[in-house]
Amino acid sequence: MPGNSFGQFFRITTWGESHGPALGVVIDGCPPLLNLDESTIQKKLDKRRPGKGGAVETPRKEPDRVEILSGVFEGKTTGTPISLLIRNKDAKSSSYDRLREVFRPGHGDYTYWKKYGVRDHRGGGRSSGRETAARVAAAAVAQVLLRSAGIDVRAYTVALGGVAAVRRDLEEVEKNTFFCPDAEAVESMEKRISEVRAAGDSVGGIVEVVAAGVPAGLGEPVFDKLDAEIAGALMSIGAVKGVEIGAGFQAAVMLGSENNDPIGPEGCFYSNNSGGILAGISNGNDIVARAAVKPIPSISREQDTIDMSGKPVKLRVGGRHDASAIPRIVPVCEAMVQLVLADHLLRNRSIQTLVGQAREN
Amino acid sequence: MPGNSFGQFFRITTWGESHGPALGVVIDGCPPLLNLDESTIQKKLDKRRPGKGGAVETPRKEPDRVEILSGVFEGKTTGTPISLLIRNKDAKSSSYDRLREVFRPGHGDYTYWKKYGVRDHRGGGRSSGRETAARVAAAAVAQVLLRSAGIDVRAYTVALGGVAAVRRDLEEVEKNTFFCPDAEAVESMEKRISEVRAAGDSVGGIVEVVAAGVPAGLGEPVFDKLDAEIAGALMSIGAVKGVEIGAGFQAAVMLGSENNDPIGPEGCFYSNNSGGILAGISNGNDIVARAAVKPIPSISREQDTIDMSGKPVKLRVGGRHDASAIPRIVPVCEAMVQLVLADHLLRNRSIQTLVGQAREN
Amino acid sequence: MPGNSFGQFFRITTWGESHGPALGVVIDGCPPLLNLDESTIQKKLDKRRPGKGGAVETPRKEPDRVEILSGVFEGKTTGTPISLLIRNKDAKSSSYDRLREVFRPGHGDYTYWKKYGVRDHRGGGRSSGRETAARVAAAAVAQVLLRSAGIDVRAYTVALGGVAAVRRDLEEVEKNTFFCPDAEAVESMEKRISEVRAAGDSVGGIVEVVAAGVPAGLGEPVFDKLDAEIAGALMSIGAVKGVEIGAGFQAAVMLGSENNDPIGPEGCFYSNNSGGILAGISNGNDIVARAAVKPIPSISREQDTIDMSGKPVKLRVGGRHDASAIPRIVPVCEAMVQLVLADHLLRNRSIQTLVGQAREN
Amino acid sequence: MPGNSFGQFFRITTWGESHGPALGVVIDGCPPLLNLDESTIQKKLDKRRPGKGGAVETPRKEPDRVEILSGVFEGKTTGTPISLLIRNKDAKSSSYDRLREVFRPGHGDYTYWKKYGVRDHRGGGRSSGRETAARVAAAAVAQVLLRSAGIDVRAYTVALGGVAAVRRDLEEVEKNTFFCPDAEAVESMEKRISEVRAAGDSVGGIVEVVAAGVPAGLGEPVFDKLDAEIAGALMSIGAVKGVEIGAGFQAAVMLGSENNDPIGPEGCFYSNNSGGILAGISNGNDIVARAAVKPIPSISREQDTIDMSGKPVKLRVGGRHDASAIPRIVPVCEAMVQLVLADHLLRNRSIQTLVGQAREN
Repeated sequence: MPGNSFGQFFRITTWGESHGPALGVVIDGCPPLLNLDESTIQKKLDKRRPGKGGAVETPRKEPDRVEILSGVFEGKTTGTPISLLIRNKDAKSSSYDRLREVFRPGHGDYTYWKKYGVRDHRGGGRSSGRETAARVAAAAVAQVLLRSAGIDVRAYTVALGGVAAVRRDLEEVEKNTFFCPDAEAVESMEKRISEVRAAGDSVGGIVEVVAAGVPAGLGEPVFDKLDAEIAGALMSIGAVKGVEIGAGFQAAVMLGSENNDPIGPEGCFYSNNSGGILAGISNGNDIVARAAVKPIPSISREQDTIDMSGKPVKLRVGGRHDASAIPRIVPVCEAMVQLVLADHLLRNRSIQTLVGQAREN
Repeated sequence: MPGNSFGQFFRITTWGESHGPALGVVIDGCPPLLNLDESTIQKKLDKRRPGKGGAVETPRKEPDRVEILSGVFEGKTTGTPISLLIRNKDAKSSSYDRLREVFRPGHGDYTYWKKYGVRDHRGGGRSSGRETAARVAAAAVAQVLLRSAGIDVRAYTVALGGVAAVRRDLEEVEKNTFFCPDAEAVESMEKRISEVRAAGDSVGGIVEVVAAGVPAGLGEPVFDKLDAEIAGALMSIGAVKGVEIGAGFQAAVMLGSENNDPIGPEGCFYSNNSGGILAGISNGNDIVARAAVKPIPSISREQDTIDMSGKPVKLRVGGRHDASAIPRIVPVCEAMVQLVLADHLLRNRSIQTLVGQAREN
Repeated sequence: MPGNSFGQFFRITTWGESHGPALGVVIDGCPPLLNLDESTIQKKLDKRRPGKGGAVETPRKEPDRVEILSGVFEGKTTGTPISLLIRNKDAKSSSYDRLREVFRPGHGDYTYWKKYGVRDHRGGGRSSGRETAARVAAAAVAQVLLRSAGIDVRAYTVALGGVAAVRRDLEEVEKNTFFCPDAEAVESMEKRISEVRAAGDSVGGIVEVVAAGVPAGLGEPVFDKLDAEIAGALMSIGAVKGVEIGAGFQAAVMLGSENNDPIGPEGCFYSNNSGGILAGISNGNDIVARAAVKPIPSISREQDTIDMSGKPVKLRVGGRHDASAIPRIVPVCEAMVQLVLADHLLRNRSIQTLVGQAREN
Repeated sequence: MPGNSFGQFFRITTWGESHGPALGVVIDGCPPLLNLDESTIQKKLDKRRPGKGGAVETPRKEPDRVEILSGVFEGKTTGTPISLLIRNKDAKSSSYDRLREVFRPGHGDYTYWKKYGVRDHRGGGRSSGRETAARVAAAAVAQVLLRSAGIDVRAYTVALGGVAAVRRDLEEVEKNTFFCPDAEAVESMEKRISEVRAAGDSVGGIVEVVAAGVPAGLGEPVFDKLDAEIAGALMSIGAVKGVEIGAGFQAAVMLGSENNDPIGPEGCFYSNNSGGILAGISNGNDIVARAAVKPIPSISREQDTIDMSGKPVKLRVGGRHDASAIPRIVPVCEAMVQLVLADHLLRNRSIQTLVGQAREN
């Protein structure tokens, strides 16, 4: 089975290249009777749009106007596939012409060519970060479903270029271009980004995602554990190189007596080292995941690489590129966790009906 | 779709509870004409068997004798499903009787009950680590396939209870009970384990998996990226709380110019921060992944929890339990990466035929 | 994805060869808290057992004793995979030795060899009708689920060797070895079978399956239509060469005004040419499907074929074989429809919760 | 898993309602390096377009202009998803206004409403035959793949309104509006259609599909048999009520000695009652399938039905509707068989590589 679909029950299929005529997504399995219009999707999509004028970002302006082509009738979902279309408008492929024969380090140019025998040199083609616009659009629909079930997912930046956020003040997140919940850290991040950009270099960071209001019982045992699916979902974002749940890598140095979350009355847990997931199934606590984001590979410093004939080449990737993927990747991390939760919410529902009936009897 | 299957083309379905009559796995999609017999599977299975007498392990002795029930004829696979059966022999459920009404912290007891409305108190039921025996048995078959394609996967311990392995001497791995590639670290690990065990506590660690000989081109774009699948696969092991590929979380603090792997002639990469995967597709380098393993939750120190009526209970989990999951989890991590690679090897094959033909023309 | 699994939500995977050590099935996705024990499965399995002494059947006696290996605890399903095992006992492979090099006409010998490069000559290997025992065992579990929802599925023979059943008296079905609902037709069928058997030949027939109590709303639109899934399910039985729903092929010669089922108050339909399915979704009527079964290919009359070197061979398939697949295939047709309905019952459930809520508001 | 996708390896997802802004399809898994442009798809799409002026058809003119939005670069497929878009232009929903509250007999109006709780009264919404335009567009891509492997699929009408085609002269097929291979039958069909249309009624018929050049070995064992998949594929077309392979229902009245196809040298079969498929796997012969098509339910004769409040209503479906689905459904039957074969061609490829290697050794 090819790799452009995600989810079992709330299932999305994305398509489109960075510099083709359009990109989009088909959502199959969205329940009927949810309120949905284009503005709801557009609002979420705007969060990942570059060109909002922050210190980190490239000036490429993409309007990213979403169009609903199916699955919605008189303002409500119908249960049939929802097709979303985003036309590519500001795609100057010509600026990539000199890359036609050269593989950019850190990008998928070389591996795509080895796999498919095709060199689509225009901005990374399908491996471009631009593909994630379709994921975010789909997640806007997932968000409508999740909110109807009382689930709220938030992502934010907890580290950038070595600068860590100490506080988790969610009120701050939308106030700065880094989506950072710590106002003090924002200043240091800005300074760090400026230095790095001036040096023609780039930096990565860490994004945290928290899902509140998730009922106990979501997730499947063994292979489709909720944490396994979240890990796969976050790692499917091009720039992510590490994922952790709850205490994560820190758990590797803790004692069992420290790491175990004691259980209190009503199934409340006194700590959350598990990140809200035990044996792959949600326990009712906040779900907490973190993703390590690598620095953007397009830098203006000179790098060693080869061309399609195998000859060594010195390459500087010109143009004005982002100095960090962080601001744009935050909504994508949020989107991926929403897509996982929407899927598992539906997967879990039929079992819960039965279990509920049995408990009543 | 329920969660007990893994893989698309080389697809396994595991079944069985810790204290039921048996456990096993069905492998669907294994190609025909591979040499296979029970001793090949048994050998791999023995690596994860407890009771080998190391300092870390529980004395429970499970023979874990595997039986091939189908899919093999005259010493070769036939292309039909391979069914493997392991009878449970040393399963004293009675020792779990006093847990019938109590949820153990850090285990899946509570979440399984919330999801399924069933309390199978006997050793964790399906959420037991014992389920991984089926994965390892299946991976023995995957290993035969991978080796026929020149791919070799090795897992080993790089940290335990805060003690890190500095060296990567793969010759050492089989010589100690920790599967540790650093002889010097082994001594400190043994000391650490003894202390922890004496305190009735437990520790975690970090496992590294390296796959050598993987050709460029494995992995699917976007959602089924090779790293996404490896991350999901490792995180589907109960005790794993974090996963990283290549530089992993370290990439979040590197500069782009440091993190990018320069490309040399013949597609050789001068470094391997990418962990052998670019844009989700293997680049021909070693694939490198690490999994953070939490401390075993069964400890003899007193913990707060509740029973099925919601009443607070003080619990000491008696019996002799492992002080760390590490030695037993190393073969499981190796198994999961093998299962991912076997699947992607087959998924990639049809495309490669076409690409090869086109390149020749 | 390999082809030994069936269903999305109530998902079974069968394994085992006709003359291997055992065969079985893993059921993944069965809801928890259903009553289940081995006798329930055994009873259904016994219906397809050969050697019940009828006029049509082979004397091979298979006890087909089923063993539940997982997924049931204290008499109830747990929500985890249910593994069922049936040991092969009376498998005399030696009687197939002279077929080692020869392809039997009408069987899968030739095509399996072309596909897999393996010649498992022992009784058809995986393509044997014996594989269907696993399907029937799994369907016994589906039946428990369906009955809990008020759905009852019955299959019976409506034609054999050119003799058609006129009546549909379901009381008669269990009273004769043909599972025929028309006592008068049974006599003619017996006569026909005797003639054919004496001539060393075989005959086919038609099986009808009716599902009563199916609520409106089961089935997915477009590709996974309920009728599409039933057609695929029935055609996946080796001997089936045709499938029809409701009026079936007769609909091709009817007028629209005859074929349309008028709708009456409360959504009752005045006729059932649709076979209970409109646009792929159940309408609340009985679901009616028919399968055309070809004559058994193993006949003692001489046939032209070739051996593995391509040389022409005259072949008489010796041994005592059934003169018709009909009696054994009736429970298999019933089983396949049950498996489809169990799957769609679960697939439909999450949507219905939402739709129900919306209707109440 | 929702029901709008088809295929495992060559996987399509269709979307769009009859009277929404557009419809389309995403093809995931198409191999790279195939020649593809819009005119190839358009040509196939034009075959199913109504308004070609024949005696049977409705005058609604749909340009059905297809646009390739992704997956093709410089005239070749890239291996990434191919997104095809068709805008709905001539969609007068207002003519359906009086159906807003009424369920049309023979259509999916009632069952969709029962399932989804939504009444999209505009021309059947997603259950409209118009959805099949997306399938045909996708099949045009499958056809390019199949032809590169020497496989040719043709569909044609063998019966309409009780008039049967006797000859199979494929040269005739494109010469008449019925896609009928028998010039003499065409005249009688035209006469029959005129009568029926004058009476405000409609008729069905039978479509035959033949695939030539299919190598032995396609198809998976057990559940995903090639004939099971073809049966499911054809039955997934709204108007199809029966499917048969090779001798089909006729096999139910044949003797084994008549029905078995004798095997000659080089694996040539002396007859083709099997329809080119044995035990679910192609045998190298032509694959032959037939689909029974019901009469179009939209007729101008008065019918009994109910409205959404459950009240009885007398309904005449006005407007000018087709008197038979046959001409439009022929390309759809062809499309579905092409989609199945493209999928199994890719699924089979990886195994064949291995089997070929083993045979050489």
